[in-house]
Amino acid sequence: MALKLEPGTRLVIATHNPGKARELAEMLEHRFDVVTAADLALPEPEETESTFAGNALLKARSAAEASGLVALADDSGLSVRALGGQPGVYSARWAGPGRDFDLAMQKVEQRLDAAESDDTAAWFTCALAIAWPGGPAVVVEGRVDGALTFPPRGGRGFGYDPIFMAEGRRQTFGEMDPAEKAQMSHRARAYAKLKAALV
Amino acid sequence: MALKLEPGTRLVIATHNPGKARELAEMLEHRFDVVTAADLALPEPEETESTFAGNALLKARSAAEASGLVALADDSGLSVRALGGQPGVYSARWAGPGRDFDLAMQKVEQRLDAAESDDTAAWFTCALAIAWPGGPAVVVEGRVDGALTFPPRGGRGFGYDPIFMAEGRRQTFGEMDPAEKAQMSHRARAYAKLKAALV
Repeated sequence: MALKLEPGTRLVIATHNPGKARELAEMLEHRFDVVTAADLALPEPEETESTFAGNALLKARSAAEASGLVALADDSGLSVRALGGQPGVYSARWAGPGRDFDLAMQKVEQRLDAAESDDTAAWFTCALAIAWPGGPAVVVEGRVDGALTFPPRGGRGFGYDPIFMAEGRRQTFGEMDPAEKAQMSHRARAYAKLKAALV
Repeated sequence: MALKLEPGTRLVIATHNPGKARELAEMLEHRFDVVTAADLALPEPEETESTFAGNALLKARSAAEASGLVALADDSGLSVRALGGQPGVYSARWAGPGRDFDLAMQKVEQRLDAAESDDTAAWFTCALAIAWPGGPAVVVEGRVDGALTFPPRGGRGFGYDPIFMAEGRRQTFGEMDPAEKAQMSHRARAYAKLKAALV
């Protein structure tokens, strides 16, 4: 087999997170016949790895084997320099079982206060993995650097978007027009690499 | 960039294990201009992941970024059914800092005795990852099923080879002719997938 994704391929997006599913489906620009892991009621594997790439690979592999379809998975998160890169791969877990990102953003603010640092540098990382059932997988990473701002601003995007301003921007990802975010986000950068490699 | 490995590409084999480096270099059949991570004195990253694929990816990525070259990494190990898949990703660690596989094989035998099971089923898994510096990575897995035998037999191969007989074989991987092992091993199966995908 060649590592190519033909237009029209039936593809499962290995996420149960509606925000991610929406952004990923939009990136794919209707090139593929997309279903989500939630649509197919696939099991959600435990994210046991210590890296974004490892977790993306694990999720794509699990969805490909469970569905028999080519699977696309995303693992992404926020890394804060003054917190030694936390929450990182634990970004979703900081939001708790209720996926409460207001809580998660408060936690970031509290930890920063406790660290008594005025360093606001942070970055988002996105790893994307494509896995073929029984076959190979391709993994890429994209990153966007920026700074944190409190209180959170904007109701767009998802996750930590309301406290993150990309380098050179005053709007947070929560305030930014989705089309503009889609030009510059960590997810967009990862997808550009995937597309260059596969499509 | 396309996910192709052109013949003659300079490639770093991301291992400090001479047995693995030898088997990998032989599989590559002199198609590439090969150096090892040991030759280049690259740092050995900590193998923090819980899967073979995750660790292979981490090692390939680390070597690619440290060297600026395309990197090939292997993560492999023995899984014993009666031990719930152990040692698995801990296969090398069971050999201790001195990489003493006589010790590791004894440990397997002791654990099997303690488990009071007569199930000897076991398998070797090999994950191979190729990473491009700053670019994507491709990951594949190969597996060979078989049974354990004690005491260890044969001085060929490396690691747990002397206690493993592949399905339908009476020789251990430690006794088998290297060319024969290279036809059927987990590493050979993973490489066949990688070759089909990339070469």
